[in-house]
Amino acid sequence: MAVYTEVSDEALRAFLADYPIGELLAFRGIAEGVENSNFALKTTGGDFILTLYEKRVDPGELPYFLGLMQHLASQGLDCPQPVPARDGQALRQLAGRPAAICTFLPGVWPRRVRPQHCAPLGDALARLHAAGADFPGRRPNALGPAGWAPLLGRCRAEGDQVQPGLVAELDAALAGILAAWPAAGLPQGQIHADLFPDNVFFLDDAAGQPRLSGIIDFYFACTDLLAYDIAVCLNAWCFESDHSFNVTKARALLAAYQARRPLTPAERAALPVLCRGASLRFLLTRLYDWTSTPAGALVTRKDPLEYLRKLRFFLRAEGPSALGL
Amino acid sequence: MAVYTEVSDEALRAFLADYPIGELLAFRGIAEGVENSNFALKTTGGDFILTLYEKRVDPGELPYFLGLMQHLASQGLDCPQPVPARDGQALRQLAGRPAAICTFLPGVWPRRVRPQHCAPLGDALARLHAAGADFPGRRPNALGPAGWAPLLGRCRAEGDQVQPGLVAELDAALAGILAAWPAAGLPQGQIHADLFPDNVFFLDDAAGQPRLSGIIDFYFACTDLLAYDIAVCLNAWCFESDHSFNVTKARALLAAYQARRPLTPAERAALPVLCRGASLRFLLTRLYDWTSTPAGALVTRKDPLEYLRKLRFFLRAEGPSALGL
Repeated sequence: MAVYTEVSDEALRAFLADYPIGELLAFRGIAEGVENSNFALKTTGGDFILTLYEKRVDPGELPYFLGLMQHLASQGLDCPQPVPARDGQALRQLAGRPAAICTFLPGVWPRRVRPQHCAPLGDALARLHAAGADFPGRRPNALGPAGWAPLLGRCRAEGDQVQPGLVAELDAALAGILAAWPAAGLPQGQIHADLFPDNVFFLDDAAGQPRLSGIIDFYFACTDLLAYDIAVCLNAWCFESDHSFNVTKARALLAAYQARRPLTPAERAALPVLCRGASLRFLLTRLYDWTSTPAGALVTRKDPLEYLRKLRFFLRAEGPSALGL
Repeated sequence: MAVYTEVSDEALRAFLADYPIGELLAFRGIAEGVENSNFALKTTGGDFILTLYEKRVDPGELPYFLGLMQHLASQGLDCPQPVPARDGQALRQLAGRPAAICTFLPGVWPRRVRPQHCAPLGDALARLHAAGADFPGRRPNALGPAGWAPLLGRCRAEGDQVQPGLVAELDAALAGILAAWPAAGLPQGQIHADLFPDNVFFLDDAAGQPRLSGIIDFYFACTDLLAYDIAVCLNAWCFESDHSFNVTKARALLAAYQARRPLTPAERAALPVLCRGASLRFLLTRLYDWTSTPAGALVTRKDPLEYLRKLRFFLRAEGPSALGL
């Protein structure tokens, strides 16, 4: 939830004059997304989203993110499509920040995930991976395995204040995960890496079944193991509010994914450790935010211990079948 | 900036099924307004705003607010029009809270007020007052003069931490304002009472001049002195960021208002004290929020001392002519 940057009327009008999208009709801050400032923009040409990139995003990486969205949209994936200005550039400046206008996607993100959401999700994830195959950009995963030890190091002093013994438990888990991490041989490509429910929109079809209408927020996208994206989704979509793992949701997700791209034997074998790694990744960033967010900041801190419970589940899981494979 | 309440997909769909506004196309939290949860709602029938009323709003007062908006809209004022459900009721329940759908208004609120905004504002304020004349509802101004002493009392213990000597200065100002407050004889009616720039939308006309496209957020509206609404606007629209009073803006506002409804001699004489009262009202609510908002709350605290500067200006002002009358 965040609008960090206010945009003056004059600056907005001057900015929009460079785009062939008609006259301004409305401009409202959107309360979703915590990394950037997002505005719903309505013009005589339609609905758009204007994003101002705030300090958590490296401006040097924006061409990768915007280029990937452009590429995926051109392949038919329902994702925000950057709108080029009259000079052909999609990445511009507004209020002293990098800024881009993207197409608006219809749909509603699921506040309560049902099993019926998980098959469309798995299908769309496989289509995303296929559509990204011929995108030439590359971006290392800054929050991948090589980043976890430094991130844990930055939480070392205060981590046990969140839960006694937490740092030691995470040290042990990290060592095990890194030892078992698949070094090579798994298919790589462009992954979303943050495919949580609030980044996926659905609309009901005529029969009342959820149809996936769009995937947003590619600002953690990177070039990494395709199956790691599945592991992120199993973490983000397949646990109930009582912290139990819903294998029905996992099976629906995995079956729909594999209908488009069957996992290799090495990917199947690696899925449990990839899931542990994904748990640890979100646990560590939440823990870091929890211990370093100043009181009064306009960021909703998310509970890191939710991901400790998920990590423990995946540490106990006896092979891929426990995950719905 | 606030979305306090999350609405599940099922609850939203069940809620919308009771309205004749078509099929759901999109649903996004809006980052504007701090009192309630607001969502931009798009259906096959158009754009709407869904509001869930949070704890600062007394549910018993909602029929007054919604009835007033309905009345003003029926008189041709550009304000949100409550959309009745199929049972004829505009006020319903969602996620355990009172909830209403209103029409969406186009426009952009001015982040930087220019003199050209102030004439359309004065004109619209006079039209609002005229349109409200035959609305039968009555709501006392809970944040009017009778409320200021108790509000100051609740800030007494911590007020001087914001600025040394503040409480004594406010005690003296309050005594002077209450002594000079016009007890009777001024025209009364339905007032907005919170007509800040973020509650007024504009669109440029063909000549590039701002045209007022809508007034929103009637949740402080009440039955009080009409000229007090002008005093609120002089506070909210006519000071520059260097804290100077811009009499050009004030003159434009007042002239446009008086073109529709000339102020009575008693109103002209009372305008300085009404302006002092309006300064004190916003100073006191900001001071109360400042001293009582818990650290980490998702509310942007506004600086109470901005209104101390305005109060001091209006205390020094030598009669109505200093205010642009």
